Amino acid sequence: MTNKIKLVSTISDKIYPFERIEEFANNGESLEVKIKGIKNAKIRDGKYLWQRFVDFLPFSTIDESISLGEGNTALIKADKKLLDFVDLNNLYLKNETQNPTWSFKDRGSLACIAMAKEMNEFVTATISTGNMGASIAAYGAKSGIKVIVFVPDYTPKEKIMAMGIHGANVMKIIAPDYSEMKKKVLSIAKKMNLRIVSGNGPIRVEGYKMVSFELFEQFERKVPDYIAVPTSACGHIRGIFKGYRELKETGIITNLPKMIVVQAHNNSPIVSAIKKGKKHVIPFSNFHTIAGAITTGNPMGGDEIIDKVRKYGWLAEDVTEEEIIESQKRLAESGYFVEPASATSLFAIKKLRLAGKIEKDASVVMMLTGSGLKDSEVLKYQKANVQEIKLEKIETAISKILNLS
Amino acid sequence: MTNKIKLVSTISDKIYPFERIEEFANNGESLEVKIKGIKNAKIRDGKYLWQRFVDFLPFSTIDESISLGEGNTALIKADKKLLDFVDLNNLYLKNETQNPTWSFKDRGSLACIAMAKEMNEFVTATISTGNMGASIAAYGAKSGIKVIVFVPDYTPKEKIMAMGIHGANVMKIIAPDYSEMKKKVLSIAKKMNLRIVSGNGPIRVEGYKMVSFELFEQFERKVPDYIAVPTSACGHIRGIFKGYRELKETGIITNLPKMIVVQAHNNSPIVSAIKKGKKHVIPFSNFHTIAGAITTGNPMGGDEIIDKVRKYGWLAEDVTEEEIIESQKRLAESGYFVEPASATSLFAIKKLRLAGKIEKDASVVMMLTGSGLKDSEVLKYQKANVQEIKLEKIETAISKILNLS
Repeated sequence: MTNKIKLVSTISDKIYPFERIEEFANNGESLEVKIKGIKNAKIRDGKYLWQRFVDFLPFSTIDESISLGEGNTALIKADKKLLDFVDLNNLYLKNETQNPTWSFKDRGSLACIAMAKEMNEFVTATISTGNMGASIAAYGAKSGIKVIVFVPDYTPKEKIMAMGIHGANVMKIIAPDYSEMKKKVLSIAKKMNLRIVSGNGPIRVEGYKMVSFELFEQFERKVPDYIAVPTSACGHIRGIFKGYRELKETGIITNLPKMIVVQAHNNSPIVSAIKKGKKHVIPFSNFHTIAGAITTGNPMGGDEIIDKVRKYGWLAEDVTEEEIIESQKRLAESGYFVEPASATSLFAIKKLRLAGKIEKDASVVMMLTGSGLKDSEVLKYQKANVQEIKLEKIETAISKILNLS
Repeated sequence: MTNKIKLVSTISDKIYPFERIEEFANNGESLEVKIKGIKNAKIRDGKYLWQRFVDFLPFSTIDESISLGEGNTALIKADKKLLDFVDLNNLYLKNETQNPTWSFKDRGSLACIAMAKEMNEFVTATISTGNMGASIAAYGAKSGIKVIVFVPDYTPKEKIMAMGIHGANVMKIIAPDYSEMKKKVLSIAKKMNLRIVSGNGPIRVEGYKMVSFELFEQFERKVPDYIAVPTSACGHIRGIFKGYRELKETGIITNLPKMIVVQAHNNSPIVSAIKKGKKHVIPFSNFHTIAGAITTGNPMGGDEIIDKVRKYGWLAEDVTEEEIIESQKRLAESGYFVEPASATSLFAIKKLRLAGKIEKDASVVMMLTGSGLKDSEVLKYQKANVQEIKLEKIETAISKILNLS
């Protein structure tokens, strides 16, 4: 692998060795993998996606034994209710909650663990309060790689158990501030040559490319016009786009999708910068949003996204807490129970359509990033149709429902 | 559809019309769908499993718009740790937690909703405290069919919300006893011509057949020797077997898998009957097991299973609470975080192997039926490796882990 590829910083094009232990360039820019000979890449035969798209990946092969069966998730056309809500004719839901740990993170974790194996690293670490920690813990368990997850000390027991049950070493760090804790952990880890995988690491991004290859197959080689992605650390959105970019470099496709950057209004370091025409992320701190999976307040990868929005004509939108809650409910009423972060895209798409930025006939994909079971706490904001009924009153209650319809 | 098939009671072969609103025969026996012309059934081309196996199904087609993307779940060979634990060379995990509502129920719900559509029923109902209610609620939401879920009044709010968020009518029934409540609901529903779908209904079983067709493809037309299924209402285990039985009737395969009936020792109405050589279920009441998804104490479908164990040489085993907790932990330490009910199979397989009832080289599939996120309450029985660390002690803590390895 390592002689095939190098790392390139995404804005200034500076080159770094693939073995680099830090996931960002010296100036803080996101790094990405540059794959040799991509222009001649071909789609091959094979049982697994990573076999068919091996020419596009930094791995010559992936050892089947480290896989938990990630990917192969459903792409479903939205029902009439959702289409009406966003005023579109062609909205599709890509259900990444069908991954092994029920979030999109698993595709990235497969890549991270494959890399750790190739580099002969016996331990890998991450800083996380949720989906990322659970995913890395599960893949570490499967592959026999030791996992350390650093969590802030206020992390709920339920989330800690979802990592801990896999055998991960969970370190609850007592620190006055999350970002201070992060900084400290990163600097110690660098000194100790311990790789801390983040949501925006260059290898993780290679895992997320799989989404674009899968969509390419599911759409029968057609490219959707827009793909909406709830954005926090930025790895997911740039991974999906990178896959399409590389398919275009080979000439297999001729156009690119426009990505839609979605954030919660209460924590919109990237979207607010874009809306204000800034080149750099506007850091958020001390914010609250129920979209607990997209709470990076000052994402290091944000500047690249802002750059790409300008370069490629991407869209960006933020949504209020009320809009998130309504979106979660509407998705559930069409069959999809997702965590609040996943729901953000629905209202963002609606607002962009209303503003005339998306054409009614455009094909739009929204990524369902994590299961609603991940965060039962936020269900307190949702209403349900629940009645308490005495045994002898059942008949009357049923009658009411049957007649009302 | 309806002229193609009829319902047959599974022990006495009595025939009922397909339109029957009750899911059991008059004498309480399980019913199954008899598909006309099964001997000439062929596997066809098609994008969806239901298209390729349409000759084996009671539906001439399934309207794509009612699907949530169920099925297509991973089949993964167990890692060395698990193989050593059960002393087998070929153990496979079929991960049904990758379904849209993260349990095996979704395949059955698709079939139930397809039937409701075909029968022009605008409402469907079920009695459930968990996976079944959530699954039917989600499929009802997708297809525009009204759903009523009857739950006992002690059902936790979290589980009620997982149904309620989809827009289902949740009726909390105040009744002194769950089985009395069930009986009353069933009798009222019959009178009102309201179909109550159960975990063992004949149409639901047709949905579970999809598992066998998918395994047939994933194993490249080979048949596994054993398939272990946590068993409660009995629909899942008989569905999987029925698919294989019908494949054999066509001559496409020549041998059948042996099913392994798995129950919690604390609620083992079927397994204890089998072990005691009885023909009928031994009802359990007032029991407690952490395997909350397999708590039918007196399953109406049980007698059929006991009959099939004898007829086909199936195996049966029960497991203690401690064995369930250990199995959940061991599966998680190999990457799979499943609910306790799913974990039962692992220890059951181990015990059957130890007793010499399964050969070391046999291929054994275990069904992972539901996500561990479904039941966070039971995590109190699990230990995790969690340390509280002050910021200034991180380096020492990491050192320990790096050196220990």
